[in-house]
Amino acid sequence: MAPLTPPPRLRGESITETTEYVLPQHANALGNVFGGQIMAWVDLCAAITAQRHSGHMAVTTFVDDLMFENPVKVGEVVHLRAQLTATFRTSMEIEVTVTGEDLRTRRRWPCVHAYLTFVCIDEQGKPVPVPPLLLDSPEAQAAQALGAERRAHRLRKNPRSA
Amino acid sequence: MAPLTPPPRLRGESITETTEYVLPQHANALGNVFGGQIMAWVDLCAAITAQRHSGHMAVTTFVDDLMFENPVKVGEVVHLRAQLTATFRTSMEIEVTVTGEDLRTRRRWPCVHAYLTFVCIDEQGKPVPVPPLLLDSPEAQAAQALGAERRAHRLRKNPRSA
Amino acid sequence: MAPLTPPPRLRGESITETTEYVLPQHANALGNVFGGQIMAWVDLCAAITAQRHSGHMAVTTFVDDLMFENPVKVGEVVHLRAQLTATFRTSMEIEVTVTGEDLRTRRRWPCVHAYLTFVCIDEQGKPVPVPPLLLDSPEAQAAQALGAERRAHRLRKNPRSA
Amino acid sequence: MAPLTPPPRLRGESITETTEYVLPQHANALGNVFGGQIMAWVDLCAAITAQRHSGHMAVTTFVDDLMFENPVKVGEVVHLRAQLTATFRTSMEIEVTVTGEDLRTRRRWPCVHAYLTFVCIDEQGKPVPVPPLLLDSPEAQAAQALGAERRAHRLRKNPRSA
Amino acid sequence: MAPLTPPPRLRGESITETTEYVLPQHANALGNVFGGQIMAWVDLCAAITAQRHSGHMAVTTFVDDLMFENPVKVGEVVHLRAQLTATFRTSMEIEVTVTGEDLRTRRRWPCVHAYLTFVCIDEQGKPVPVPPLLLDSPEAQAAQALGAERRAHRLRKNPRSA
Amino acid sequence: MAPLTPPPRLRGESITETTEYVLPQHANALGNVFGGQIMAWVDLCAAITAQRHSGHMAVTTFVDDLMFENPVKVGEVVHLRAQLTATFRTSMEIEVTVTGEDLRTRRRWPCVHAYLTFVCIDEQGKPVPVPPLLLDSPEAQAAQALGAERRAHRLRKNPRSA
Repeated sequence: MAPLTPPPRLRGESITETTEYVLPQHANALGNVFGGQIMAWVDLCAAITAQRHSGHMAVTTFVDDLMFENPVKVGEVVHLRAQLTATFRTSMEIEVTVTGEDLRTRRRWPCVHAYLTFVCIDEQGKPVPVPPLLLDSPEAQAAQALGAERRAHRLRKNPRSA
Repeated sequence: MAPLTPPPRLRGESITETTEYVLPQHANALGNVFGGQIMAWVDLCAAITAQRHSGHMAVTTFVDDLMFENPVKVGEVVHLRAQLTATFRTSMEIEVTVTGEDLRTRRRWPCVHAYLTFVCIDEQGKPVPVPPLLLDSPEAQAAQALGAERRAHRLRKNPRSA
Repeated sequence: MAPLTPPPRLRGESITETTEYVLPQHANALGNVFGGQIMAWVDLCAAITAQRHSGHMAVTTFVDDLMFENPVKVGEVVHLRAQLTATFRTSMEIEVTVTGEDLRTRRRWPCVHAYLTFVCIDEQGKPVPVPPLLLDSPEAQAAQALGAERRAHRLRKNPRSA
Repeated sequence: MAPLTPPPRLRGESITETTEYVLPQHANALGNVFGGQIMAWVDLCAAITAQRHSGHMAVTTFVDDLMFENPVKVGEVVHLRAQLTATFRTSMEIEVTVTGEDLRTRRRWPCVHAYLTFVCIDEQGKPVPVPPLLLDSPEAQAAQALGAERRAHRLRKNPRSA
Repeated sequence: MAPLTPPPRLRGESITETTEYVLPQHANALGNVFGGQIMAWVDLCAAITAQRHSGHMAVTTFVDDLMFENPVKVGEVVHLRAQLTATFRTSMEIEVTVTGEDLRTRRRWPCVHAYLTFVCIDEQGKPVPVPPLLLDSPEAQAAQALGAERRAHRLRKNPRSA
Repeated sequence: MAPLTPPPRLRGESITETTEYVLPQHANALGNVFGGQIMAWVDLCAAITAQRHSGHMAVTTFVDDLMFENPVKVGEVVHLRAQLTATFRTSMEIEVTVTGEDLRTRRRWPCVHAYLTFVCIDEQGKPVPVPPLLLDSPEAQAAQALGAERRAHRLRKNPRSA
């Protein structure tokens, strides 16, 4: 018998916000955070949202459209914000936006934007049902629909990503 | 001529919130975050608040009353929140509260509480004036008064901490 | 006057291969490498290929279709291989494949596959021309054509990624 | 039945001394060790003293009067020395002094001073009795008395810290 | 009864090649990789070869003749190559060569050369037989003979190293 | 004109002792510190002695006879002690002994023993004269003689190590 689908949950309950101070150990020889470090922060921030929404372990299965817009330097700060955009049977799509900040001037700028897909697993590593998002507004419904479109696109390009 | 005091700023503008996912590299042999790792996160979070408030580099000069209340384990999450409590001529006091969270149950618990003092410095390392906090509510005035009391107590015990 | 396009180079000259031994510090609470760590390794491996091909600093601007296929555990090994697929005026696309290996049995399995785009910059951070790939075989021509298609698709979805 | 108090031990047996070479990964954008890194070293050094004295795991419960006096730069060295000042039923107070050193001139300067309190726990995390310090000199007796005073002060300010 | 010797294996099957991008976190105050970091990379690279050849855990027991020839800077790349030179009953000798590379010019230079000895252990930490190297060429036979000479020399100088 | 030889110095002035608490991030999958981590600690500890003796930057040029005798586990402690054994014109030999300690029982055991050679350099990276050791006892004279023998042996085997 298939496991029951858990009751739906609100998007707002699993939003994750975090802040990273850029130290020399995060930077390349030019003093900018190197891309892989930001990707590691993006993944961790999204993983918290995935686990908080589902109440289970969740593992990254896909990253698409991760775009670096502007660099961030040592001594500056990086803000990350992860929120669910769509849920599927055992997976969910999470949008992460990363913003740079110069603490001296409080100026902020867009740094990175990405969509990550996580699969929810139990302790044996088997996929388990994800609680659906409560689609309680036209915006939530539109986000779910766009997420479903991106998923269909991913499956066409990468059949193994199902 | 002494440098002019900069215009006052609101406490709300420099609050810093961050979230850390606890990995095996942060833990001791029992699987709990070790105290020094939390202290490092507390200091970084408070440093962001200090620099955002003052618009200058800021260095830690004092930590008092840092209390560990409950442990946090690998796979759980730590939330940090830093906010200014009081400003003095070239220094400021920042309160940091740390909360643990079990992502499966969303249960949260108090983990650490601390007061840190930062001095604001210029590029030669010389102290510079800190913008005063705008004391626009009885709560803000009370926080400033309690911070001034803690500072007087620190100076009595550690005259070099002036 | 626009800078001259540098002479073309062979894909084989900039292939990068690297091997990472998975330690507890790379793993999540289940003992698997966490996704963000692999993304950080993927980015560094591709950055070496980008800089070796161009002879300049190169920064990540886009990651698409990064797919996690199978996990890797503490005590196992990860192999990364990065190679150029296509070059454009100031950017280049690099394909990275990641393979897991169990050292006791020498069994290997597909772990991650990704395309990353890098922009080549000078010391002031301004884009500089990338040496074109020498398209000396039908395979090289097909890879360039597919890369150009993916680029057109990226630009349609994210006009700012140009 | 309450566990028996273990036999007393000498302070000299659990003194811990360590030396850290300051690398770029420990420093902020000015090239100084950032405060949180020193706090992490202070905590680890004191934890060794706590566990060596008690023969059990010990966890940090309080840090007070941690004062930063002078900075230390990349390429310089930091010396830490932790020694017990006072023991209570299941907790103990440890004093840590941190000294900077310029290896080229061998000049040394005071860097940090702190008191940390540790609680001794068994494998289930329950507090266990701490061996008392052998108060075999007027200095040892005075240190125990001052530690007891600081503890009374902590309890008045933070009743939960008991 | 002594465990049977496993069947011999070819040297080529366990060669390990890896590449490290030098970041500020690997460097000393002069911007050069510090020696201990390279030693850590050398040990990990050789450990992969040891475990791939033997199919068991392997622990380092001896390092001799580790020579640093030329430095490597932040922003440059380090190549490591480990290959078996000789096998003994429960131990094996591995040669590691480290090469620096300037990505802008593709110039390469010798950086480090070393011999490491590993002992093969089971899950209780007891030594187990190592598969012998298939000595299928005069070069392989000469390498085994030179390794046996180095081992005899080690045992004369350090009888405990047996 | 060759730079003058600086005045001699006592061995006791540059002895370095340090202590490392073994955390999960230092260990392999069996919970033992991996060899490369210990080698990194050995190199840093010896580098402090080399720089304190000479008053200059010093870089590792040779490691010989580094022997691992017994493992150390997560939760245990590692003590390192570095002292000069011999000085030459622009280089010096340093002996490092590493000891493990179980904090619960205070039992200690030999863990690693090694000789490292450092060359003293100025800010352009050119070798500079090392202050000779004051050979004020038969033991100091014997240590210098043995170090000179090891150096002669190194030069015979590795002419480039001169």
